[in-house]
Amino acid sequence: MAGDPIGELVALFARLPGIGERTATRLAFFVLESPPELASGLGEALSKLHDRVKRCRTCGNFGADELCNICRDPRRDASIVCVVARVPDLVAIERSGAFRGRYHVLHGLLAPLDGIHPENLPIAELRERVEREGVRELVVATPLTVEGEATALYLADVFGDSGVEVTRIASGMPH
Amino acid sequence: MAGDPIGELVALFARLPGIGERTATRLAFFVLESPPELASGLGEALSKLHDRVKRCRTCGNFGADELCNICRDPRRDASIVCVVARVPDLVAIERSGAFRGRYHVLHGLLAPLDGIHPENLPIAELRERVEREGVRELVVATPLTVEGEATALYLADVFGDSGVEVTRIASGMPH
Repeated sequence: MAGDPIGELVALFARLPGIGERTATRLAFFVLESPPELASGLGEALSKLHDRVKRCRTCGNFGADELCNICRDPRRDASIVCVVARVPDLVAIERSGAFRGRYHVLHGLLAPLDGIHPENLPIAELRERVEREGVRELVVATPLTVEGEATALYLADVFGDSGVEVTRIASGMPH
Repeated sequence: MAGDPIGELVALFARLPGIGERTATRLAFFVLESPPELASGLGEALSKLHDRVKRCRTCGNFGADELCNICRDPRRDASIVCVVARVPDLVAIERSGAFRGRYHVLHGLLAPLDGIHPENLPIAELRERVEREGVRELVVATPLTVEGEATALYLADVFGDSGVEVTRIASGMPH
């Protein structure tokens, strides 16, 4: 088949986590046998995803604008910031409804062996934010993994003598 | 989030087989955290899929042109036609390398309770093809399920007194 559009789609599906070539093939044929609206709808949602979803310039959460819904909400307590590794961790905490502060999304965890050092995470931004917004407490909700713990320890160290209280809760999935 | 592009993508992923809301959410965030090339590549492959992939007008196989590679190949024996339910079944038989005839893809199986009757499958097209191309043997390779067996019995009945030999092999997965 010239250009092999099916093989190309299979290869792209197989780049998604938990999807091997067998599953990718099944997905590609399912889409092909379905009404074209499924393929075109999914195609458009994916093509426009990075244009339509922005990272909040304050906290890194995903949203439709420069500032996310949580950072724009004046009822959220700006003096308590919960630090998470990934947006899904934030979503899980929001679903619990128990936290009324704001967030800081690292989009990763310290992993020196993989080349992820403090300067690769938005930690300088967090320091600025703490000073600018008068943050009193950081709740570190990184996962209970080696990287999650290392990141929590690093943050406790960095903010140890800044007058900010650093507490730790476990959250998120192993990455 | 205005318009909720992430929720939209999650809902579309969840329409794929074997992908629940939890997995769909994980896929959406994975794509969002990946370099934009993954989302745009997958988006384009999906958007153009139905334009780039055609059903062969003779056998129903997928291909880039009006006639698929197998129907265009003069070395394939046009007198033996293997009847399959779905294109992946054809792909599996091709991979074995054991079959040198041609195919007829039904894109379904008889399932009267689901409203799929003989006139909803390309069986009239198969009858015309048998007459036009002098087919001597039909190898019915539908799966060993109720619908697969019912379809095989129906084909044996339809072609029973036409001088065409109808044989049966098991193939394909339960649908």
